[in-house]
Formats: sequence, C-alpha cells, structure tokens
Amino acid sequence: MTPIDGADAIPDVEKDASGETLAAVRSLGPGAPALAFDVGGTDIKSALFDADGTALGLRRTPTPVVAGDRTHAILDRLDALAAELRDAHPEVVPQAVGLVVPGIVDADAGVGVFASNMGWRDAPLRDLARERLGLPVAFDHDVRAASWAEHRLGGARAYDDAVILVIGTGIAGALLVGGRPYTAGGYAGEIGHSPIADGPACPCGARGCLEAVASAGAIARRYREATGVVPDGAKDVIARAAAGDEVAAAIWDSALDALTMSLAQLTAVVAPEAVVIGGGLSRAGGALFDELRRRLAARLSFHRLPVLVPAELSGNAGLIGAALRARELT
Amino acid sequence: MTPIDGADAIPDVEKDASGETLAAVRSLGPGAPALAFDVGGTDIKSALFDADGTALGLRRTPTPVVAGDRTHAILDRLDALAAELRDAHPEVVPQAVGLVVPGIVDADAGVGVFASNMGWRDAPLRDLARERLGLPVAFDHDVRAASWAEHRLGGARAYDDAVILVIGTGIAGALLVGGRPYTAGGYAGEIGHSPIADGPACPCGARGCLEAVASAGAIARRYREATGVVPDGAKDVIARAAAGDEVAAAIWDSALDALTMSLAQLTAVVAPEAVVIGGGLSRAGGALFDELRRRLAARLSFHRLPVLVPAELSGNAGLIGAALRARELT
Repeated sequence: MTPIDGADAIPDVEKDASGETLAAVRSLGPGAPALAFDVGGTDIKSALFDADGTALGLRRTPTPVVAGDRTHAILDRLDALAAELRDAHPEVVPQAVGLVVPGIVDADAGVGVFASNMGWRDAPLRDLARERLGLPVAFDHDVRAASWAEHRLGGARAYDDAVILVIGTGIAGALLVGGRPYTAGGYAGEIGHSPIADGPACPCGARGCLEAVASAGAIARRYREATGVVPDGAKDVIARAAAGDEVAAAIWDSALDALTMSLAQLTAVVAPEAVVIGGGLSRAGGALFDELRRRLAARLSFHRLPVLVPAELSGNAGLIGAALRARELT
Repeated sequence: MTPIDGADAIPDVEKDASGETLAAVRSLGPGAPALAFDVGGTDIKSALFDADGTALGLRRTPTPVVAGDRTHAILDRLDALAAELRDAHPEVVPQAVGLVVPGIVDADAGVGVFASNMGWRDAPLRDLARERLGLPVAFDHDVRAASWAEHRLGGARAYDDAVILVIGTGIAGALLVGGRPYTAGGYAGEIGHSPIADGPACPCGARGCLEAVASAGAIARRYREATGVVPDGAKDVIARAAAGDEVAAAIWDSALDALTMSLAQLTAVVAPEAVVIGGGLSRAGGALFDELRRRLAARLSFHRLPVLVPAELSGNAGLIGAALRARELT
C-alpha cells in the first residue's frame, strides 16, 4: 500500500493519461454541500461543492498504485482528500459524499463488482466509504454518473433517450432510457467491450473489442506498433493522417469504421435520439464528428439517425455526476 | 385492389412462407372479448377472443396483394374477417380490436410510419381501422406486441429486461426494459437491420444487415445461390450441413457467427437477462441454441451472458399480443 503521510504528500497532477486538462467545473446550482470523488485507474478527481454548487479545491491526484486489490489504498486516499478539503473550507459542511468508480458497478447494492484496473471483486465500496468518511455515500458507475451529469447539465439536456460515449484511454458508455440511466444490474453500456472485429486481443479477455481498435489509446498504440514511432497521442496520429501519412490514415480510417459500425448497431437496436461523445478523442472535432455522421448515414437506410453531439462537461462529468448523486441523498 | 366478394371468398392457408403451422393459441385468461389481427407481408392472422380468453375462428389468410400502398385493401380484408367472426359467434361481443403490423410503427400516434412490404408511409392505421370496424383499436408493432405476449404469457415471463428475436423470412426484434416495451418512437429493436458484415445488399437499402446473412430466408437463398439447388428452407440447409455438405456447413457456420456477433453486441450494450428466440429458425433447437450459447460465451469475457430461450407462443405471439393490447383499452 502506498503510504500517505498527510494531505501535503498528495501529489497534484495537471493532466491525465489521455491529455485532458483540468477545466473549470460548471456550477451545479443551489443545493446541499457535498464531497465528490471520481476514482479512475490513473487519477482521482476530488472537490467540495458548496451550497451554490461551486466546486472548491478541485484537483486531480494519482490513484494509489498497489499490487492486487486497490480498495483500501483508495479509501485511505479519499479520507486524506476529504480531510484536506474540509480543513481548507471549514465554512462548507458537506452533507453527503458522491463516489463514482469504473468497471462493473452494482449501484443499487453499493458494490464494485469488477474493475480490471482496480483489482477488486464484489467490493462493498459504498459501505466502506460511509464507514471511513462518516457521511452518507451515493455510489455509482463513473460513466453512468457522467451521463447523468450530461443529461442534467450538459450535452444530453434535450434528450431522454441518449447514449453517452467516452472515448479516451478506453471507451466507456452509458445509456439513458426515458430520461433515466439504464443499468441492467451494472452490465449495460459496455460499448467499448462489444466485439467489432476479429482482433486484436483486448485486456478484458475478449478479442476485437471496439476499445482495442478505436479508443484514443488504441489509435496511438496501433501507430506505435506499425511504425516504431511514439506519437503524441491519438490527436497526433489524426494530424499525421491529415498531413498525408498513409499508415496514420489507415489506422484512423479503420478506427472511424469501427466506431461507425458500433454506432450503426446502436442506432438500429437502441435508436437513441442522441449520442453524446466525450473523452480525449472528442476534441478531434469535425475530423471525428463530421466523419462519423457521414459514414453512419451511408451505412444505414430507414433508420432514425441519432444527433451526434460533443459532451459539454467532458473530463469533469463524472465528478459532477458524483456531486449530483450525493445531493440526491440529502 | 383485390376484390372481396364476402367472407366466403377469403382463402384459408395452413402454413405461411416460413413453414410455420397454425398452432393452438394459449388462452389469455378472463377479460373483455376482443378481435385480434396480426397483419404480415404474406398473411393476416385473425381471431375473436372470448371472455375466457379462448381464440375463436383462428385462421390465417393471405394478405391482399396490390401495387403500391396496401392500406385500403387490408382494411377491406379486416372488415370482412371481422364480419365473418361476428357472424359465426354472435354470442361473443367484442369490445375492442387489437391490430399489429410490421415495419416502423409509432404506436403512440397510431401510425404505420414505414413498411417496405406494405407500401405505406405515415399511414394513420389506428384511426382508419377504428372508423372501418366501429370499435376502439389498440395499434402496435407486430414484434413488440409479440414480445409483450411472450413477457405476459410465454418465454419471457421471468425476465423484465429481455430481447425478443424472431428469425424467420426476416429477422425482427423487440426490447423489454424494466418489464415494458422500449420503442424509441418505433425505431428500437431493428436487430435484423443492424449491419454485421460488408455484404450482401439488403432490400432495406443498407448492406450486410443481419437479416441478409442469417435469417431463415437468407440461409435458404444463400444455399440456392451457391449451389443452384433449391433447399426446403433453412432447416434443410442445416440438415445438409449436419450430413457433411460443405457448402451448407459454411453457410450455416457464417449465419451462426453473424447471430453470435449481434448477440455479443446486445449483451455488451443492452445486457438483457434473456434473449427469447422465435420464428422458423428457432425450431432448429439445439443446433441453434447450443451453438449460440457456446459461441457467445467464447466471444465475450466479463459480460453477463443472457439466458437463450425459445419463444413459447411463436407464430401466434403477435396475435396474442394484439388481443392483450385490445383488452387494455377496455
């Protein structure tokens, strides 16, 4: 377990692995003060939201790295972050905690069922966090919480039937059905781990998952494997493709095709009104959105094409979703 | 328009194009008497359900064939069938009509939006049928009505989150979410018209639709195109594959692979508890169900595998769903 010598020992980071910068967080509007934590494989985002809904002490710190189950190291870190936030803002008294995590999450039971990069299996994270932090804890899946935030405050505001796709190091998704998250016991929305091709192998154990072909991480990795050149992320591969690099163009084209096939399946079967795309790759702008619109229209016929819109809270949507969930407890 | 000279002129049929025979219909249980019509591209199924929920006068008659929009020819036929049923059973006074049709259906608006084999576009079928038949009309999509029947009385009884797949001449699907049909304005559940491969062209205008690769109709067609031999339906191709016919084996294998890919996408994204499979191909039994279970498990990893179960009302599920919908109006 990584020792924590107090809040001073927690290193800040300015960017995460996907190159995302820590942006200002949109205000939640008035409500109960709450602590919010978005725990990822690389970083933990944390903030104290005050009664106006403003994020105080917003920061991103590395997720503790330990062998095996990271549950207790993470709880230690959350405890230290909570203490630091409360010390820095004694006038703001949080009434609840919002905690969101990746992987397969049973939000109703408060359990982290499985997360390959966290090492836990059936971890009762809600109860553990409540005991540790001494406050009621709202517990949810990070991307479903992000989708909730996008629905309440961001790009999915106008749509009751929507899919949120976060394309960064991996690809995560969440479904909104009738204005509510559709969870299927925590198993719904795994668009990143839906098979789209015969390969390559995916760390999840399956092969040809969309994430292994078309995530920002996969695009950079595939370019590196094909050329030996380490690109500065997917955006660099896209720029090289635009500049005439044929290897980069082939990789970007196949990523767009794979994303189009996944969106076409979604459109035919789930038929969302909108697909809200966030994460590092969404910053490719028209190179992503215009191409996906064009290819999706060409791949389908009578189907109702979804509106493709960028996420508005990208990067902080999970943290905002955690705060919104915490307020629902108060 | 096909002239109708009275009920005597309506020809009965014993099988539809998929080879399905007209089986006894499970009782609905007690409730209001209702007329039910399941209008398909080939046949119309019709019956009068009495207060015990027993189907009286159940029959299958050819759908009138006319150039262009078949709406009015079909209304003429429904009127004749209704008159015949009421004449034959004067003691049973229907309180409502259930009418289900294929294609893109906006059940809330009562509109048949589009159906390639019916020729209509934005046809106000509920209102037209109400005027013609003089009774309140419940209007729905045939496969969503069938899924509702399977949920209330058949193979999906135990599951609130389920997908119903009807694999016959084509492939149609419907989603149950939280025990209710999920419609997305009529566009959800088009699993048959989700792209799964680069070809062949599909009559819907897209290419590589699941229906064009793996429906019972496609399996028979593909065998005929590959060999010049006209098989006795998909079941004959499956039997030839089992008997060592390599062309038949390759076609059946690729159909199973395509179905597996669609089910894998469904499992990852929608994560239903169960997939209920009906239609002609479901009668392949273990050759279909055991193979799909094995291939689906091999294709995925942490995902929650759905139970694959045969439809129980197959063939009459749409008609039963129509009757259930009609009773909801009374």
